[in-house]
Amino acid sequence: MSTDPLVVFTPSGKRGHFPVGTPVLTAARQLGVDLDSVCGGRGICSKCQITPSYGEFSKHGVTALEGALSEWNAVEQRYDDKRGLKTGRRLGCQATVKGDIVIDVPPESQVHRQVVRKAASTRAMVMDPATRLYFVEVDEPDMHTPTGDLERLERALREQWKIPAICADLTLLSKLQPVLRKGKWQVTVALHKSHKDTVARVIEIWPGLHEGGLYGLAIDLGSTTIAAHLTDLDTGAVTASSGIMNPQIRFGEDLMSRVSYAMMNPGGDKEMTRAVREAMDTLFAEIAAEAGIDPSLIVETVIVCNPVMHHLLLGIDPVELGQAPFALTTSESISMDARDLGLTAINARARTYILPCIAGHVGADAAAVALSEEPGKSDDLVLIVDVGTNAEILLGDKSRVLACSSPTGPAFEGAQISSGQRAAPGAIEAIRIHPETKEPRFRVIGCELWSDEEGFDAATAVSGITGICGSGIIEAVAELRMAGLMDENGLMGSAEATDTSRMVAEGRTHSYLVHDATAEGGPRITVTQGDIRAIQLAKSALYAGARLLMDERGVDKVDRVVLAGAFGAHISNLHAMVLGMIPDAHLDKVTSAGNAAGTGARIALCSVEARREIERVVGQITKVETAIEPKFQEHFVAANAIPHKTDTFPELAKITALPTPNFNAGSGAGAAGGRRRRRG
Amino acid sequence: MSTDPLVVFTPSGKRGHFPVGTPVLTAARQLGVDLDSVCGGRGICSKCQITPSYGEFSKHGVTALEGALSEWNAVEQRYDDKRGLKTGRRLGCQATVKGDIVIDVPPESQVHRQVVRKAASTRAMVMDPATRLYFVEVDEPDMHTPTGDLERLERALREQWKIPAICADLTLLSKLQPVLRKGKWQVTVALHKSHKDTVARVIEIWPGLHEGGLYGLAIDLGSTTIAAHLTDLDTGAVTASSGIMNPQIRFGEDLMSRVSYAMMNPGGDKEMTRAVREAMDTLFAEIAAEAGIDPSLIVETVIVCNPVMHHLLLGIDPVELGQAPFALTTSESISMDARDLGLTAINARARTYILPCIAGHVGADAAAVALSEEPGKSDDLVLIVDVGTNAEILLGDKSRVLACSSPTGPAFEGAQISSGQRAAPGAIEAIRIHPETKEPRFRVIGCELWSDEEGFDAATAVSGITGICGSGIIEAVAELRMAGLMDENGLMGSAEATDTSRMVAEGRTHSYLVHDATAEGGPRITVTQGDIRAIQLAKSALYAGARLLMDERGVDKVDRVVLAGAFGAHISNLHAMVLGMIPDAHLDKVTSAGNAAGTGARIALCSVEARREIERVVGQITKVETAIEPKFQEHFVAANAIPHKTDTFPELAKITALPTPNFNAGSGAGAAGGRRRRRG
Repeated sequence: MSTDPLVVFTPSGKRGHFPVGTPVLTAARQLGVDLDSVCGGRGICSKCQITPSYGEFSKHGVTALEGALSEWNAVEQRYDDKRGLKTGRRLGCQATVKGDIVIDVPPESQVHRQVVRKAASTRAMVMDPATRLYFVEVDEPDMHTPTGDLERLERALREQWKIPAICADLTLLSKLQPVLRKGKWQVTVALHKSHKDTVARVIEIWPGLHEGGLYGLAIDLGSTTIAAHLTDLDTGAVTASSGIMNPQIRFGEDLMSRVSYAMMNPGGDKEMTRAVREAMDTLFAEIAAEAGIDPSLIVETVIVCNPVMHHLLLGIDPVELGQAPFALTTSESISMDARDLGLTAINARARTYILPCIAGHVGADAAAVALSEEPGKSDDLVLIVDVGTNAEILLGDKSRVLACSSPTGPAFEGAQISSGQRAAPGAIEAIRIHPETKEPRFRVIGCELWSDEEGFDAATAVSGITGICGSGIIEAVAELRMAGLMDENGLMGSAEATDTSRMVAEGRTHSYLVHDATAEGGPRITVTQGDIRAIQLAKSALYAGARLLMDERGVDKVDRVVLAGAFGAHISNLHAMVLGMIPDAHLDKVTSAGNAAGTGARIALCSVEARREIERVVGQITKVETAIEPKFQEHFVAANAIPHKTDTFPELAKITALPTPNFNAGSGAGAAGGRRRRRG
Repeated sequence: MSTDPLVVFTPSGKRGHFPVGTPVLTAARQLGVDLDSVCGGRGICSKCQITPSYGEFSKHGVTALEGALSEWNAVEQRYDDKRGLKTGRRLGCQATVKGDIVIDVPPESQVHRQVVRKAASTRAMVMDPATRLYFVEVDEPDMHTPTGDLERLERALREQWKIPAICADLTLLSKLQPVLRKGKWQVTVALHKSHKDTVARVIEIWPGLHEGGLYGLAIDLGSTTIAAHLTDLDTGAVTASSGIMNPQIRFGEDLMSRVSYAMMNPGGDKEMTRAVREAMDTLFAEIAAEAGIDPSLIVETVIVCNPVMHHLLLGIDPVELGQAPFALTTSESISMDARDLGLTAINARARTYILPCIAGHVGADAAAVALSEEPGKSDDLVLIVDVGTNAEILLGDKSRVLACSSPTGPAFEGAQISSGQRAAPGAIEAIRIHPETKEPRFRVIGCELWSDEEGFDAATAVSGITGICGSGIIEAVAELRMAGLMDENGLMGSAEATDTSRMVAEGRTHSYLVHDATAEGGPRITVTQGDIRAIQLAKSALYAGARLLMDERGVDKVDRVVLAGAFGAHISNLHAMVLGMIPDAHLDKVTSAGNAAGTGARIALCSVEARREIERVVGQITKVETAIEPKFQEHFVAANAIPHKTDTFPELAKITALPTPNFNAGSGAGAAGGRRRRRG
C-alpha cells in the first residue's frame, strides 16, 4: 500500500495517493475530478477554488488533520487582497498535499457544473458549452526552428490543455501576432470545440488573462417575434432577454402566406431573408447594450425556428415547404459562422448552431421543445403543445415519441380578430364575464388592476384601452360560453342569451360589447361572431393535431399535458381547456413549461452533449404529417364545437366568481416579465 | 477452385473470379482496379472504357476467347453513334464477364492516371485532385420518412460512391432543391475531399450529367508578377496561362520596402492586400475568358508565394517578417474558401490551398520548388536556385535538404538599372560584345532577329528599342568582362579597355554605350558603372546564399545545379555562371527547370497526395537564416569579384563568336512563350 497521502475529493468520491507537494489541481486532474481552471494552474484565474474538509470522512475512515495542506501562500494572499476569497477556500493550484485529506470541490469550481434551468423547474442542466476560455503560455519564435505563431499556439494548447488541433480563420490570423506580443506570449483564447469537428476553432484571443466573460445567444426565431436570451457561457445564467417583431410580417402573417409571397414575387425570398437577418442584428446590438457588454464577447448563437423561418434565415427559397411532399433542403443540425448569415453585430467569428428539423412542417423549434421537455424520458404519456402562429405538438413516453405541427394561424396571437391587436400596453389580456349580470371586467397590459377596481381609469389613461390580444380573445370566447352567451356551436344571440345590453345585433349575427370608448373618441371593442369562428378554426386545428397523434399512438387520453410557448406565459390554461384547445386532462396534470423552445435553445447553447442528444432523439421521433392525413380533417370538423364544461371542471364556477383567480395572478406576473418572450 | 471466369486486369495485374454476368466495372471496383467512372455505371459518362485483350496472357497461363465478354449492347451503340468509341473499346459498365479474359485499362480510363508534366521533363505526376465529379441518383422525398434533400444526396453518395459524409455551405444549399428537381433526381456534384478534412464539401451541383469539365488555377504569386495556369482537373493539362503585374509594386519594388510601407503607413498593409486580391480577380476573369470557359467551372486554386506576399494576400500585417526573429503568423499549409480572400471571379465555393512556408524568409514558393524538383529524392547533391526579386535556394540530397532565401533585389529583373526596364517589347534581352571590335549586337523582345541582321530595323520600328531588361543586363555585364572591358573588380575604363568609342567617360566613371537613338529622338542606352555595382550586389547576395548552404552542409562544390524561375525562361545559364551568380559546376550538370514554383503549384493542384508529401517534406528541411549568419556577410563580400572564366569555360570564346548560340535559341523560344511566366 502506498505511503503517500490519500486525497479524497467530494462530491465525486474520487480518490488516490499523491506524493507530498502535489498541487491539489494536479491531483484532481490525474483523478479526472471535475475541477475548473482557465489559467492552467498559474494562480491567476481563481477558477480552481476548493474547500479543504478537515475532519473525519467516516465512510472510508480517513481522518484529515490540520496541516494536511501546504501553508497559505503569497499567490493566494495576493488574490485574496485583490478579489477576496471566501473563508475556508484555497486555490487548488497553489495548495499542495501534505497529508491525508478530504477536499470539497464547490459547485462553482466544477467545469461541468449543474445549473438550475429556472425557478419553476427542478431540472438542472450541465454546463458543457462548445466555447470555453483557455489561458496559455506560448513559446517565443526561434529563428533556428522557425514555426509560425499559430503553430506555437497550437503546441501550447496541446501541451497545456491536451487540445489536439486548432484552426483559425483569416480575421483571427490577422490579429494573432500583435495580441501574442502584447500579452508577452501569455494569452487567453476562446476555443470552439464542436461535437462534429475534430479541430477546435480559435474564436477570439486576448492578451494575458481575459476576465471579461464569454456569452452566447439562445434565439427563438418565431414567425411573429424573435426572442433572444443572452447567456453567460461560464455560469449558464441568462444575463438579459429581449425580443423584436419579425419584420417578415409585412410579407405575410402566417408561414404559408410567406411561402406564397416567395412563389409569387421573384426575389421575394431574398427580401424576407434580408429582413429577418437585419432584425436579428438589431436585436443582438440592443441586447448587448442592455446588458452593458462588448458585443464581441458574444461568441456563439443557437437558433431554433420552424422550417419556413429556417429556410428563410438560411437564404433558401421555402417554396418546397409549401407543397407536398414538403421536402426540407436539409433536416440535420447546421453549424456555420454567424457572419455567413449576415450577422455582424456580435463577434466576427461567432458560430451559429441550428437544431435539427423533425420534418417539413415540424422544425428545430419542436426539436428544442423535445430537448427541453424530454417526452422520450417520461414514464407516463405526455402531450406537449407549443402554440404560436403554428403549433408544435409532441406526444410520447419512454417507448415512443410522435410529433406533428398544426397550422393554427395567428388568431391565438390576436391577429385576424376584429378588435385584435398584438400584446402591447393597452391591449386587453384577461376578461371575466359575470355569470349572472353578463357584465365584463378585464385587465389591460401595462396595468395590474382589473377594470372594476379603483384607480383603473387613471392607471390606463396613457395607454388607453386599444384592443384585445391573443390571451384576451381566448378568455373572452371561453367566458362567453361559460356565461351562457354562446351555444355549443359557437353561435351568439340565441333568444335566452340576448337578454343583456352587451349583446348587440349586427346584421344577421351578434357581437358582445366589451368596452365602448367612442364617446371619448376611443375604440369600440367587441367580440364578433367572426372572431369566434376564427378562434374555433384555430382551436380545432390545434385539437385535431393532438388527436391525430393520439390516434397514431392508439390512445384516447393522455396522462398529462404540458403547455408551452404563448400558453405558459399568457394564456390561461383553464380557459384553454374550456375552449377545447387541448384534450381534457385532470387540471393538476396540466402544467406550463413557459417558452420551452427558447429553453431548449439555451440548453443546446450551454451543452455540446445536449446537441448530440437532440440530434439522436430527433432521428427517433415518429413524424406525422397533418396535411395528408384524412383523419386530421375529421378531427378538425369534430373539434369545432365548444361543449359546456362546468360539469367536467366544477371548480370553474367558483373560479370565475373570484376577483383575481390564482392562475391569473401567475399569468399576470408572467405577462409583465415575459411579454417579450411571446413567440409566433 | 472457383469455376467462375477468371478476369485479369492490365496494367495492374489484379485478378479474380467473377460470376458470369458481372459488369467489368463492378469486377474492377471489387479488385480495387483503377478504372474511372463519373456516372457510376449508368453508361452515360464513358469514363470506364476498357480494351478486352483476347488471346493468351502467357505469364499466368490464361487463354481468353472471343465471346468472353457479353455482346456489344444498345447503350454502347448509342454512345458510339453519339460520340464515337475507339475501335476495340467497350464500356466497362455495359460489358459483362462471360469467360476467362484479360482486360486492359487504357491510361485515360484510369482515375489516378499519370500526366507528363511538361515536354522538357520525363517526370510524370499522378492525377489525384481534391475536387472530382460524381454522378448520383438521389431518392425522391417521402413524407412518411422526412429527410432533407441534402441528407438524401449524402446517402446517395455514400451508397453509390462510398463517400462517408458531405457538407455544403449556404450558397450551395440555396440551389440544391431546384437543381435536384431540374435533374429529375439525377445530378452531378463536384466534391472537394481535402486530405485534412473528414467530410467532403459539395462545391457545385449540376442537373443530370455535367460534361463541361472542371478546372483549377495554379498561381505563382510573385513580388513583381502574378502568373496563373488554368489546369483541367480531369486530364492535368494546362488549358491557358496568363500573368499580370503585381500592383503592390507601387508600394515598393522589393519585399522589404513593402514591409516598410506597412510599418510607416497605418492601414498600408490593407491597401496592399486589396491591391493584390483585385489583381488576382482580374487575372482570373481574363484567363477564363481566354480559355473560353465559364468561370464557375474553376473550383480550386493553389497558391505559392514568398512569406511577405503570403501575409499580404491573407490580410495579415507583414511587420514581423521585417525584423528578427522573422516570425510567420502561420507556417503550415492553409486551406480556405477563395471568397475569404475576396476572390469572386471564380466559383463562389472554390477552395484555395496555400503550400506551407519553410521559414520567415523561405516561403511557399520555395516549398513548391522542393515539391517540383524533389531535392530530397536526389542521389547526388543538387543546388536549386530560383531567382526573382528574392532568390530561393535549396541544397540537398536524400540524406538532408537545406533552404534559405537571399535578398537579391530587383536588379536581375531590370529594376534599379539606369536603362533598365521590365521584360516587354522593345527591351534588350540578349547582348553579345565582339571580343576584338568591342562592338555590341543585341536582340529585343518581340523580334527574333539580332541587331546586325537584315530586317532588324524594320522589325523593331513599332516597338522601338526602349531599354534593357533583366536577362539583357546580366549578359551585358558578363560580356563586358569577357571582352576585357571590365576588370575583376567590376571596374570599367582601365587604360587598355577604353580603346573603343563605346566606352564613354561619365564623371569619374565610364559607361558602355549599347545603343544611341538620340538622333531620332530615341533613348541612349548604356551600361553604367552603377548598373554593374547593382548587378554585383545582387549576384553576390545570390552566391553568398548558395555558399552558406554549402558551408552548412560542409561541402565546397555541388554535383549539379538546377536553375529555376527567371533563370530558366530568360537568363542565359552560361552568362550567369560567368558572372559568378552561382557556384561553378560542369556545364552539362547545369539544367533549367523553368518556373519550378509554378510547376509545384500545379502538382499540388492535381494531387492531394502531393500536398501531403510537401507538408511532410517541409518539416524535414533545415532552414538557414541568411540575415543572422555572419558568414553570409563574408561570402557576400568575397563574391563581389568577377574573375575571368574563359579558362574555366574554354567553350565561352567559341560560343560568344557564334551569331545565335544554342542556349539562346532555347531561351528565345522560352521568352516568346514564357514571358508572362516571369516571376518576382
